Amino acid sequence: MTTTVITHIGSLVTNDPALGDGSPLGLVRDAAVVLDGERVAWVGPAADAPAADTSYDAGGRAVVPGFVDSHSHLLFAGDRTAEFNARMSGRSYSAGGIRTTVAATRAAGDAELEANLVRHLAEARRQGTTTFETKSGYGLTTADEARALRIAAAHTEEVTYLGAHIVPPDYADDPAGYVDLVTGEMLAACAPYARWVDVFCEKGAFDGDQARAVLTAGAAAGLVPRVHANQLGHGPGVQLAVELEAASADHCTHLTDADVDALGQAAGTTVATLLPGAEFSTRAAWPDARRLLDAGATVALSTDCNPGSSYTSSMPFCIALAVRDMRMTPDEALWSATAGGARALRRSDIGVLAPGARADLALLDAPSHVHLAYRPGVPLVAEVWQRGVRAV
Amino acid sequence: MTTTVITHIGSLVTNDPALGDGSPLGLVRDAAVVLDGERVAWVGPAADAPAADTSYDAGGRAVVPGFVDSHSHLLFAGDRTAEFNARMSGRSYSAGGIRTTVAATRAAGDAELEANLVRHLAEARRQGTTTFETKSGYGLTTADEARALRIAAAHTEEVTYLGAHIVPPDYADDPAGYVDLVTGEMLAACAPYARWVDVFCEKGAFDGDQARAVLTAGAAAGLVPRVHANQLGHGPGVQLAVELEAASADHCTHLTDADVDALGQAAGTTVATLLPGAEFSTRAAWPDARRLLDAGATVALSTDCNPGSSYTSSMPFCIALAVRDMRMTPDEALWSATAGGARALRRSDIGVLAPGARADLALLDAPSHVHLAYRPGVPLVAEVWQRGVRAV
Ligand SMILES: [Zn+2]
Ligand SMILES: [Zn+2]
Repeated sequence: MTTTVITHIGSLVTNDPALGDGSPLGLVRDAAVVLDGERVAWVGPAADAPAADTSYDAGGRAVVPGFVDSHSHLLFAGDRTAEFNARMSGRSYSAGGIRTTVAATRAAGDAELEANLVRHLAEARRQGTTTFETKSGYGLTTADEARALRIAAAHTEEVTYLGAHIVPPDYADDPAGYVDLVTGEMLAACAPYARWVDVFCEKGAFDGDQARAVLTAGAAAGLVPRVHANQLGHGPGVQLAVELEAASADHCTHLTDADVDALGQAAGTTVATLLPGAEFSTRAAWPDARRLLDAGATVALSTDCNPGSSYTSSMPFCIALAVRDMRMTPDEALWSATAGGARALRRSDIGVLAPGARADLALLDAPSHVHLAYRPGVPLVAEVWQRGVRAV
Repeated sequence: MTTTVITHIGSLVTNDPALGDGSPLGLVRDAAVVLDGERVAWVGPAADAPAADTSYDAGGRAVVPGFVDSHSHLLFAGDRTAEFNARMSGRSYSAGGIRTTVAATRAAGDAELEANLVRHLAEARRQGTTTFETKSGYGLTTADEARALRIAAAHTEEVTYLGAHIVPPDYADDPAGYVDLVTGEMLAACAPYARWVDVFCEKGAFDGDQARAVLTAGAAAGLVPRVHANQLGHGPGVQLAVELEAASADHCTHLTDADVDALGQAAGTTVATLLPGAEFSTRAAWPDARRLLDAGATVALSTDCNPGSSYTSSMPFCIALAVRDMRMTPDEALWSATAGGARALRRSDIGVLAPGARADLALLDAPSHVHLAYRPGVPLVAEVWQRGVRAV
């Protein structure tokens, strides 16, 4: 195994308070990191760094753990630019919404779907994302959901079965029949490829009882629940996520005091994953991250990358929005985009730069991680190392 | 002279209605552009493109005119990350504001100032900006202002004398004396390097009478006025800009109906330059672009790139904000970031891709310019041509 020392790091975020300045970010100034194969072997002050086979000079720039994007929808085909353009231009448009993407995804060949996924993953990686969760949900037949997950599983370990995204047009008159499918034959076909089961628990999609059926059936098949909860209005999603010990409740835009309390109590189990790209691209009101943090909740940030409501793959952009519009501090936002995402995926080997962790990191064209919020929109990610290999 | 044809352009923004679909953007689908040296020689459907010495395949991607960033403050030194971090974290900080940057800029050597400028210009260029205006304003002595402009003039044609940025600490008790300096000895030393004269007309900076004195003295020395106007509150800046036929009134965040009417009437002379990065980074209310456009005003978008209130160099980010938060359509925002900026600099050779124009263009990793708003934060600028030369 070859060892590499990255030295002359002006500011290093480890996310391990024991390693750094005692803050949650575990900041080390004038730092070095030693990589041994695909793992981190050593972290500390550059002056104390052990020798390694090769050496790399960070030139005083900042290093952060690779971003953990714990919520995306990248198994899709088709184009919805005209729909976005009309919405933002105040023109009406006979948009099919998700249904447009479902039709295009069903019609696409495997190679097209996979090429789309690979292109978006590469784009995210160039922006510092080293772990991606992604979901099905645009197939909505047994065969189409299973192939989406099979393709996803070839590119990431974090694959989520979202057969319960919407009730597809072919089941418009029989939503109960669709839930039977999602919890029966479709689940059986999809479970081998997935780690997680998810449901869009929202008025117009699946109600509390339906969501419970989907998640408990998924859990019985060995999948761990996560929930699209409380995005468009109040509802039972968050409480259900906490009750079923879901790994995350995602969106959390419309929360009652009881919802916030529940997420605070469940901080060790269920992460509140905020997706500001969705509020940005739909001109919606922002989730209140400050309220969640003050209640003790564990907060993750993610892109929700999808062609309808949040077509960004940029974790730095989400950090800038979280600081500007959700009242997170730059430190909190960085933690949530790395360690927070790892918690939402119940991973302890990523989102942190400590001995034994995966050697996933981003080198910024900036002296500190604060610049991700201070310099919004500027592509500051200069280099990315994934499992110890320079990927960008 | 070598000619180059860029062909297989999926969607081309020319900003010349006569060349395209009749819309203000002059869109051409399946287009080609022929470059002859540093100029555009031909624009039209790819099928009709004349032969050229070399050929470049855009692969169906979109091409737009290079962005014209008509308002930036890049002659500075020093670091204000801690001030930003404290502000966004709700912590008090004994910040000196602009004065911090003035002290660091005065203390910096010429080489440091120039290296800073060059680094930021290169960063902007990678994001598609091919014309940069930049200002003095962090020196505030005759020698420091003149050297800032001398350094700027070596890198851009669009140089603005902003001795009247703030009253510096050394003149705190004698603002009239500072205006005398700015309109006298300092102006004489600076005018040879600058094309424009600017003043920060705002409560706490320079009032209407002082601003008038600065602008008329500048005009007498051959400089064309532009005005920092109505950013922090209502004031005389916009009316003064229109009255003095300034090229632009910049910020325009707080406007009365009379201000809006004046900018509508002056659409052929004085551009309303909106700087959403400043509102983003200071959590301020947005300027109302829709109101200005509906009144017939000419609107430009620019970054205001500076280390205090808007440390972004990203024109794509400004476009995304303009669409999301200022109610511009994606088409209007693209026009304002290119042709609008050119108008604000009274240039007809940039911001447009038509025969005779400068061969400044950006190739996007996207099928259309709408993606700049549809995919916020994603670095979509793949390649940049400046004066006919591939620069990125
Ligand atoms: Zn989602
Ligand atoms: Zn300014």
